[in-house]
Parts: sequence; structure tokens; C-alpha cells
Amino acid sequence: MTNATDATSAPATGGSFLEKVRRRWSDGRTLLCVGLDLELEQLPTARDGSDVETAFFRFNAAIVDATADLVCAYKPNAAFYERHGAAGWSALARTISYVHSNYPEVPVLVDAKRGDMGNTAQAYADAILDGLGADAVTLHPYLGSDALQPFLKRADRGCFILSHTSNPGASEFQDLTLRAADGREEPLFLAVARRVAEHWNGHGNCGLVVGATYPEQLRAVRAVVGDLPLLIPGIGVQGGDLAAVVGVGLDSHGAGLLISASRSVTYASSDADFAEAARREAKRLRDEIEALRQR
Amino acid sequence: MTNATDATSAPATGGSFLEKVRRRWSDGRTLLCVGLDLELEQLPTARDGSDVETAFFRFNAAIVDATADLVCAYKPNAAFYERHGAAGWSALARTISYVHSNYPEVPVLVDAKRGDMGNTAQAYADAILDGLGADAVTLHPYLGSDALQPFLKRADRGCFILSHTSNPGASEFQDLTLRAADGREEPLFLAVARRVAEHWNGHGNCGLVVGATYPEQLRAVRAVVGDLPLLIPGIGVQGGDLAAVVGVGLDSHGAGLLISASRSVTYASSDADFAEAARREAKRLRDEIEALRQR
Repeated sequence: MTNATDATSAPATGGSFLEKVRRRWSDGRTLLCVGLDLELEQLPTARDGSDVETAFFRFNAAIVDATADLVCAYKPNAAFYERHGAAGWSALARTISYVHSNYPEVPVLVDAKRGDMGNTAQAYADAILDGLGADAVTLHPYLGSDALQPFLKRADRGCFILSHTSNPGASEFQDLTLRAADGREEPLFLAVARRVAEHWNGHGNCGLVVGATYPEQLRAVRAVVGDLPLLIPGIGVQGGDLAAVVGVGLDSHGAGLLISASRSVTYASSDADFAEAARREAKRLRDEIEALRQR
Repeated sequence: MTNATDATSAPATGGSFLEKVRRRWSDGRTLLCVGLDLELEQLPTARDGSDVETAFFRFNAAIVDATADLVCAYKPNAAFYERHGAAGWSALARTISYVHSNYPEVPVLVDAKRGDMGNTAQAYADAILDGLGADAVTLHPYLGSDALQPFLKRADRGCFILSHTSNPGASEFQDLTLRAADGREEPLFLAVARRVAEHWNGHGNCGLVVGATYPEQLRAVRAVVGDLPLLIPGIGVQGGDLAAVVGVGLDSHGAGLLISASRSVTYASSDADFAEAARREAKRLRDEIEALRQR
């Protein structure tokens, strides 16, 4: 296994999600976020008859060992774990704990897309930020900021609010024109981004989610949110254009993006060499992003 | 324990979620939905030192045994189970299985407020509709209908899309004016309701969520969605006005509502008589709703 801390000398591991990810962007020289979205039938670690929890955990641990020096964050999507019930939930908790114990400089963003209110939102925050120990989480904007307070008030954790998603039908609502209370008219996705940047970010821990498949919307979001971090899913299998994303998405420091690839990295090989193949693909993506970033 | 099937003679238990809930509205004469949102420190069944899974399951089973003849559905909110990780998830699965085995005429709606896309949405559908066996689920509209297909295509399961939520800050986005592709201008919550009724309901399994705390918005939603079922949270602790809800929310058959109360029923007593107290409060609410419905 690779000693994945080589790239960061004596990593400073404390601080908030944003401090951690900024160190990965600068000292770690990487904007690459690797998604851990596991499907049991794809896992070489399941073929020996291991139970789900073991197969998931061993796969993730091997991917993490092989790529931790190349990423700014890991992003497991909760759905793929919930699909396997209690065993999946345990695998997710063990994976996050493994990253924290072995690569404390690398934050873990749980892509859970939660959005509820009051004591229910508190229960979700307890589940994801404390139970799982996530450094950051993805959230739906629809209920407004009062509903998300149990997440937003946690200054040391990142809150990534959906602005423009990467799916083909994202435009059904997100691109429609919304008239704000002050009379301003702009697309819903941009109104969300503006609201988050101007009103929800009191603890300095907010970011937005903008799919790599919509570079024009990404450019518009960057223009209104200043240097807020942007999570960019949709690279790789979904077909997002890396050059376009880096070209329009960087913040004023030439960073500010978590560019997420999942299956193209984790399933680069379906055989026993899956971890080495994942490292090769992660390195290729990281290097390509870095080259674009230097332009 | 009460024999909770008394009210329905030889219940027909097959069919879709909508068929089940319609039988409860008519033959069962109830629009009451009881939320199962458990907090460990509130549970008498936890005070003997039982583990979380056992305490949650025993509490829910007792509440269900005491109220099944009085409700049109149960609505556990996933957050309160996820807070306890794998043990909570197991308790939720066991609770749903218990209802299905003992009261197959009563559907279970999992209030999960999910909203993701593609293979991730499929994983959530697998987790909630198959893994947990939910008869219905709550969903976020923000990503559009293509993202929710793994739920929408399941004709036998109910899909309740968030329209206007019950929290104080719901208006932050939901009440703002949206301009649709055809030029129509209306509040976002109403545009969502219209879109669901006119375009997302191809399998006849859609409904909307409208908080009891916003009766004017409920009236507006009912006016555009015809007889679609509406899930109405916010009765009881949140202060929604039952008379206003029934007054404006009924469909053309004098039904069409799942009026949800949670803590006011489940925590009617914090002592050993909690199930009997829950039955009394559920009966009071059911009877009050039936009286309003007959006006």
C-alpha cells in the first residue's frame, strides 16, 4: 500500500472542514474529491463471500490507502450504504472512522442531501455529523435556512447546499426565473446560491453544489458567491468537462473547488488490482486538474 | 392490548398504497396519520436499560397495537432512527415489518425527504421501498422528475413531494414567485404542486406535502391538484389548526388527507400507560377530524 501522507509533510490535522480542505488545495496540491459510491456486485472484495459490511469496508479502506495523498476530500454517498440497511450504515461509519484515524488531514463529506426541519433536522445532524462523524454534508435548500440551523450552526463542519445539480432534468425547476422579496429576478439555482452566500453563511461554513455538466451555471454561481467552496459532481461517467469546470469555477486564489469523481476512479479495474488502478486514475485526474489550474 | 382491527371487518389488504389509504379513509373512517418520531430519552421502554433497537421497537409496537384501528397510515421519520445508526435502522425495519404482519390494511409512509438522481436515487428507492418495505415516501422536488424516476415508476408506492412545509421559514423560497417555461407566474410551492399533478403523476401514485400551519397555501394546492392525496404535518405540537385544514383541504370525496400528528400522540403520557394515553389522544383527534369532515 502507498504511504498516502507523503505529499503532506507533517500534516496539520486540526481545525474546521474549510481549514482542512484549504490545506489539501494548497499544500496537497489537489482539488480532486473521490466519491465512494459502492455497488456490491462491482466489488472484488465481495467475491470471496464476505458479508456486506466487510466487503464495503475493505474496498473503501483499500481505495483510501491508495489515493489519500491525491485527494482533497472523500465523498461517500449515503444512499449506497442505506441500500444495505444496518450493515451498510455500519460500513459507512467504519469507513469514515478509518479515514479520520489514518489520514486525519483528509476531510470526509457525506453526500446525504438531507433537508428537514426542527427536531428532525437536529436528528439528521446528530446522525451525520456526530454519529457518522462527517466533516461536511450536502443539504437541500427547499425548506429555507431556519430548517437547516442544526447543520449551519456547526461552524467546524461544511454545509454544501444544492444549487444546480448535474442531472439532465435539473432545469425543470432550477433554471426557472424566481422573483425575490426585493424584486430581483434570477434563476432559482442562482437565487439559492446568492441567499446562501449572503444570509446563510454566518458561521463561514457554507458551500454550494453545482454539477460539472452545467459550466455556464457554474460560472454564474461563482460570480455571486465570491470564494465560497463549490462541490462539483458529474466528472467522469456523467460527462462533465474538466477544462470548462476549472476554467470558470476557480475562486480568487485559484482553488475553491472539490471536483468529484466516483465510479471512474473506484471501478477503474474490477479485478484484484482495483486499488492500484484507482490510484492511477485518481493521479491522472489530479494531475490534469493541476495542469488546468496552472494555466 | 386493543384488538385494533375491530373497525375494519375482514380488511382487504392488497393493492397499492393509494388503494390501501382510500380504504382507511372510507371503511376505516379516519384521516389521522400517526408519526413515529422517537427520541430515546422520552421512551418508557428505554428505562429498563434495553438497547436502542429493542426500546424503539417495543415502543412502536405498543403504539401501533393501541392505535391501528384509528389511523389511515403510520409515518416514521427516518431521521430519528438514523440518529442511532445501525441499531436505529434495524428498529425502523422491524417496526414496518410489524405493521405489515399484524395490520396489513394500514400502510406505512416513511418520511425520509430524499432527493437525489440516477443510480443514487435508485439506491435510495432500493433502501426505502424494498429494504424497509415502505408503502410510501416523502421526496424533495428540487432535482426534477427525471431524478425521482426510481420512486415515481413504482406504481404501487406513494410518492409525496414537498410543496409547502410547516416550518416558520418555509416562505424563504417556497412563497416566492416562479415563472414557468410557459410564462405562468405563481409561487414556487404551487408551481411544484401543479408540475407534480400535471406531469409527474403518470403512474397515479403522487401526492403533495403541505404543512398544517399554512391553510391558505393548502387551499391553493388543493385547487390545482384535484383529488391527489395530501400529507399534512404540523398538527399538535407545531400548532396547525385542524378546523382550517379540514375546511380547505378535503378532496371532492370528502377525503384525500393524511393529517399527521406525532409527539402529541406518542408522548401523550411518559409513563407505563403511554400506549393507552396514545390511544385516547389518537381517538380524540380522529373523532375531531371526523366531526369536521361531516360538516
